[in-house]
Amino acid sequence: MRGVVLNAPGDVQVVDREDPTIVEPTDAIIRLTATCICGSDLWPYRGVEPADHLLMGHEFVGLVEEVGDEVSTVKPGDFVVGPFAFSDNTCQICQAGYQSRCVNGGFFHGTIGTQAETARIPFADGTLVATPGQPGRDLIPSLLAASDVLGTGWFAAAAAEAGPGKTVAVVGDGAVGLMGVLAAKQFGAERIIAMSRHADRQALAREFGATDIVEARGDAGVSTVKDLTDGLGAHSVIEAVGTQESMMQAIRSTRPGGHVGYVGVTHDVTLPGEELFFSGVHLHGGPAPVRRFLPELIDLIWNRTIDPGRVFDLELPLAQAAEGYQAMDQRHAIKVLLTL
Amino acid sequence: MRGVVLNAPGDVQVVDREDPTIVEPTDAIIRLTATCICGSDLWPYRGVEPADHLLMGHEFVGLVEEVGDEVSTVKPGDFVVGPFAFSDNTCQICQAGYQSRCVNGGFFHGTIGTQAETARIPFADGTLVATPGQPGRDLIPSLLAASDVLGTGWFAAAAAEAGPGKTVAVVGDGAVGLMGVLAAKQFGAERIIAMSRHADRQALAREFGATDIVEARGDAGVSTVKDLTDGLGAHSVIEAVGTQESMMQAIRSTRPGGHVGYVGVTHDVTLPGEELFFSGVHLHGGPAPVRRFLPELIDLIWNRTIDPGRVFDLELPLAQAAEGYQAMDQRHAIKVLLTL
Repeated sequence: MRGVVLNAPGDVQVVDREDPTIVEPTDAIIRLTATCICGSDLWPYRGVEPADHLLMGHEFVGLVEEVGDEVSTVKPGDFVVGPFAFSDNTCQICQAGYQSRCVNGGFFHGTIGTQAETARIPFADGTLVATPGQPGRDLIPSLLAASDVLGTGWFAAAAAEAGPGKTVAVVGDGAVGLMGVLAAKQFGAERIIAMSRHADRQALAREFGATDIVEARGDAGVSTVKDLTDGLGAHSVIEAVGTQESMMQAIRSTRPGGHVGYVGVTHDVTLPGEELFFSGVHLHGGPAPVRRFLPELIDLIWNRTIDPGRVFDLELPLAQAAEGYQAMDQRHAIKVLLTL
Repeated sequence: MRGVVLNAPGDVQVVDREDPTIVEPTDAIIRLTATCICGSDLWPYRGVEPADHLLMGHEFVGLVEEVGDEVSTVKPGDFVVGPFAFSDNTCQICQAGYQSRCVNGGFFHGTIGTQAETARIPFADGTLVATPGQPGRDLIPSLLAASDVLGTGWFAAAAAEAGPGKTVAVVGDGAVGLMGVLAAKQFGAERIIAMSRHADRQALAREFGATDIVEARGDAGVSTVKDLTDGLGAHSVIEAVGTQESMMQAIRSTRPGGHVGYVGVTHDVTLPGEELFFSGVHLHGGPAPVRRFLPELIDLIWNRTIDPGRVFDLELPLAQAAEGYQAMDQRHAIKVLLTL
């Protein structure tokens, strides 16, 4: 089968890879309907993280082809959505809702790589969620978004305790930030401030529920958010970038007692303890436990309450994955869907 | 009136200071019954924070002597407890329960200094809480503890989401850590692990509700906590020291999805973003909004449900404050009560 490999930074190739087979009785093999490129894939692509023949991809939707003897919740022919991490969904950590840190779990990125035609899914029962039926083509992008960016934005909004009566600021206008806007809207936030400098992303943010757009960044961005919130800062801030500047911007934009939900994969970030102490904010984040939210997200998509698939603005066949990486790297695309 | 001044690191003196008077119509003047020395007073005493004729003290109980025209909830003759920070208790931040970050508030330490015979209390209505009547002498230490260490330990336990079915680890065996143990017990925690190397503090921790004592520190302390918790870490960890080692010990002792409540005033701490990200913990802390908890704490003390005053193991007259600082600095005393 064909799959994407990042030979070295900037060098994306679609190669022949071995067909996956059932290894453990809890495995499933799926044939992908669609996969996509993630903002986090750009870290190794840009050489910020190591890249040496890395198996790429951690987002997927598809059809179950085969299941191991111990799999009971999905069967061949089911259309399934999976999160970017696999999990048994039975350990204490999973049961507490942190499936992305399952004691027996792991990440697809670099190990299995789901930018591919087929994939082995460990702990199929604990990882996959079947849709109520076969989805129409129009639902595929939204279901695929649930696999990571929607689930991650949703977790960020939950971690930031977005809700009725609250002002939510979103730092980062990539796919995850935009999904954070959508999630905050669903959570009933009163006001949603999207921090963005790009007209197309601003438009999408407004469509997803942003009430205010702030173009300023860093300290100027913090000031603007404070000006919009009686000088206090937002109740809830979603951080969806992962740099030192964006983390500090998020913390400083939050009022004392408020909540920062941070989901941008942090790179070279160090938080000053004293400033954090006196900020009085709540800080929570990390790799989103997407599996926790998948059943609810699939419902909302299936009922057409939300349309997160709008975040994909470029669609390419898997064979042209390299072009997709380039488009995202150069910000010509927010998020690229790869068809199979 | 007499009051404590820290002329320079290590140089504590009780001097004549001007008698306070009503400045704002929202002020009250109180005559202190007791005050005490805080672990955080040791930072300037040891020269870790600047100390140049600093007015010391931020914990107090006493009798109201005089109130400004706009004060309505306390009156002359009332016995009152105050938190270490004053607050209007009406601003949005106070209303959200973060009175220690009141937009009009401030700290007694260094500005008013309550290691003194009398003190001016700004925003008396928003700051002070009167007891149901005149307390007996035996209740004074516990009411005084509510002013800071109990309120701070209580906030830490709340921030760490201590509760039924949970394992709570407490890093730090000073007065605040011990109060964290007491709070965790009141919150219904199933298991309370106190990290302590001192026999007297271990005994007090057990008295307050600790079920396990761990003497190991740093990485070894983390390993021991994991050994006691199925390899996962505690659900809730209270950090009551404020150093780099104690913060990292607290974060690493917490399971993914768990909560760190940190209240040790941080000094020279920097948190590694990537480790924090992948830890998946919740982090919340800072200067405790003691005022939020005071009514409840006073009730629990008044009804003799809790006896936090046990944390004072040395009592001296205000005139001997220097001796008290020395005893705490040299760890001959956990916490020193100063009588007036």
